[in-house]
Amino acid sequence: MTDVEHIAGKTCVVVGAGGFLGAQLCPRLVALGAKVRAYGRTRYYEAPLKGVHWFTGTLEDVQKLATLLEGVDVVFHLAATSSPASAEASRVSDLNTNVGGSLGLLDLCRHAGIERIVFASSGGTVYGDANNPPFSESTLPKPISAYGINKLAAEHYHRLYNHHYGMRNISLRIANPFGPYQHGLKSQGIVSVFTRQVLEGSTIRVWGDGSVQRDYLYGADVAEAMIKAAIYDGGADTFNIGSGVGRSINDVIGALEIVLGQKIPVEFQKSRRIDVATSILDCSLAKRELGWHAGSDWMTSLEETCNWIRQDIRAANT
Amino acid sequence: MTDVEHIAGKTCVVVGAGGFLGAQLCPRLVALGAKVRAYGRTRYYEAPLKGVHWFTGTLEDVQKLATLLEGVDVVFHLAATSSPASAEASRVSDLNTNVGGSLGLLDLCRHAGIERIVFASSGGTVYGDANNPPFSESTLPKPISAYGINKLAAEHYHRLYNHHYGMRNISLRIANPFGPYQHGLKSQGIVSVFTRQVLEGSTIRVWGDGSVQRDYLYGADVAEAMIKAAIYDGGADTFNIGSGVGRSINDVIGALEIVLGQKIPVEFQKSRRIDVATSILDCSLAKRELGWHAGSDWMTSLEETCNWIRQDIRAANT
Repeated sequence: MTDVEHIAGKTCVVVGAGGFLGAQLCPRLVALGAKVRAYGRTRYYEAPLKGVHWFTGTLEDVQKLATLLEGVDVVFHLAATSSPASAEASRVSDLNTNVGGSLGLLDLCRHAGIERIVFASSGGTVYGDANNPPFSESTLPKPISAYGINKLAAEHYHRLYNHHYGMRNISLRIANPFGPYQHGLKSQGIVSVFTRQVLEGSTIRVWGDGSVQRDYLYGADVAEAMIKAAIYDGGADTFNIGSGVGRSINDVIGALEIVLGQKIPVEFQKSRRIDVATSILDCSLAKRELGWHAGSDWMTSLEETCNWIRQDIRAANT
Repeated sequence: MTDVEHIAGKTCVVVGAGGFLGAQLCPRLVALGAKVRAYGRTRYYEAPLKGVHWFTGTLEDVQKLATLLEGVDVVFHLAATSSPASAEASRVSDLNTNVGGSLGLLDLCRHAGIERIVFASSGGTVYGDANNPPFSESTLPKPISAYGINKLAAEHYHRLYNHHYGMRNISLRIANPFGPYQHGLKSQGIVSVFTRQVLEGSTIRVWGDGSVQRDYLYGADVAEAMIKAAIYDGGADTFNIGSGVGRSINDVIGALEIVLGQKIPVEFQKSRRIDVATSILDCSLAKRELGWHAGSDWMTSLEETCNWIRQDIRAANT
């Protein structure tokens, strides 16, 4: 029952559809025959939103959202107003917007009779400096960033609404995603940031000595996980979604050197306190329950990402 | 170094001092020779605040709080604007006031150069429907109430400030406390609520069949734990504070029948979704690290509580 084709004909709302994850999910939903209402503050790119109905708005536009949610089967909640760095700079506002906003969405969905929200949580930040990676869903989370604390609190609220109101929400703890439509212009997503910097001829700056390990996951794999979570009929409510492979920043740079065919000069800088030392996810629960695993090939995914960023730079310059 | 006498001469701020926990902590601090600035919205009782300096205000009165925090050694953060039931009725406002308020206090303390906040978290709600009680600090929390979710998020923020700014905050996951100055007029604290109802001649209403177990802890023991946490110099940041003993509601009623010397009629009602089935805390970490355990005798504590409520009813009627 976790065959993604079961999403065909379902009416889906994607909240926060204008961002990178939305650009992964929406075209896949459309291709599978789902009806997609896409909702967000802005659309960075038009191409991935072909075939969806776009609505502009924020989590605070309660009336607009309530109308949008009528007759909907499943909601994908990808909205986040912050990156880990910006959340840290403004913790109270991040709390209000992201946790408070999630709570508001939960109430609207409950009143609309929607059974399932698939919530994009953060596998890279909720565990923080927890012990003994790879982290499983039963690892005790010790977030060391406001971003991680707030994602975790929002997860708890999704589970609370399952408990109180019989919803069947699912939180996906998504590792470090990368891929086309992650433009790399802000400080989020080091694969894209580095690629863009190299292609634009600027120097790569690494916080720390480049040894910190992350679990990098291709965007197409994330979309597949979200759709499988949408149609999942088992009892679990929280899944790690990652590659399960730890790669250091130096590994990433080495792989980019191969893909881009050039030596990449790096400037090492003092590490930031919000960065965890190692983040690798044990994704066996998602494999067992959702029948999902990160199937994309690392080097091919990197290559596709580089091609897209090259093309994005070209488009910006014409 | 966890001898409570080390608090002598220290300047302490107790935020939320006007409530039940403040009434336990303040007189003990005064008796031990600490200088106490008590801060809160209202004072329910004058007696336990003898010898402290009282200041009226809320967590939102940033300027007032900032002045109060000058030259302070330790802050006890007992402020909460809600009970589990009221938090559930207004989740967004509970989030803003309690998590947002804690964040504001953390910032003020950091800027005032204060090293330690002892935060009163909730052992009775953060674990929720976690597996296999008794719960230790390494049990994966699964709160099933907004109150528990928000206490847990506030704990994470206290730990975040340790991580980022070298503070040494400690969260105490306090079990179900009871004792003098818990008036039993609101829906919090079943020992006091039941005692008051019996003494006033009204019928006791129990949610569920009375089999749910809680870990009841005498107020004097809580005060001792908070002071030991204030002067603790080890590395742990989160402690369960409870008796370690599970007592059913029926057990409590049975014990009250003995103390009050009368049969207590009970009306059983449908259980509430925010109530966890069993909550018992494993407090071995507090014993090992703080040298603390719940030393008060259950029946004697109940008797003292009943005596106080009897006297409080008499005072209200004269």
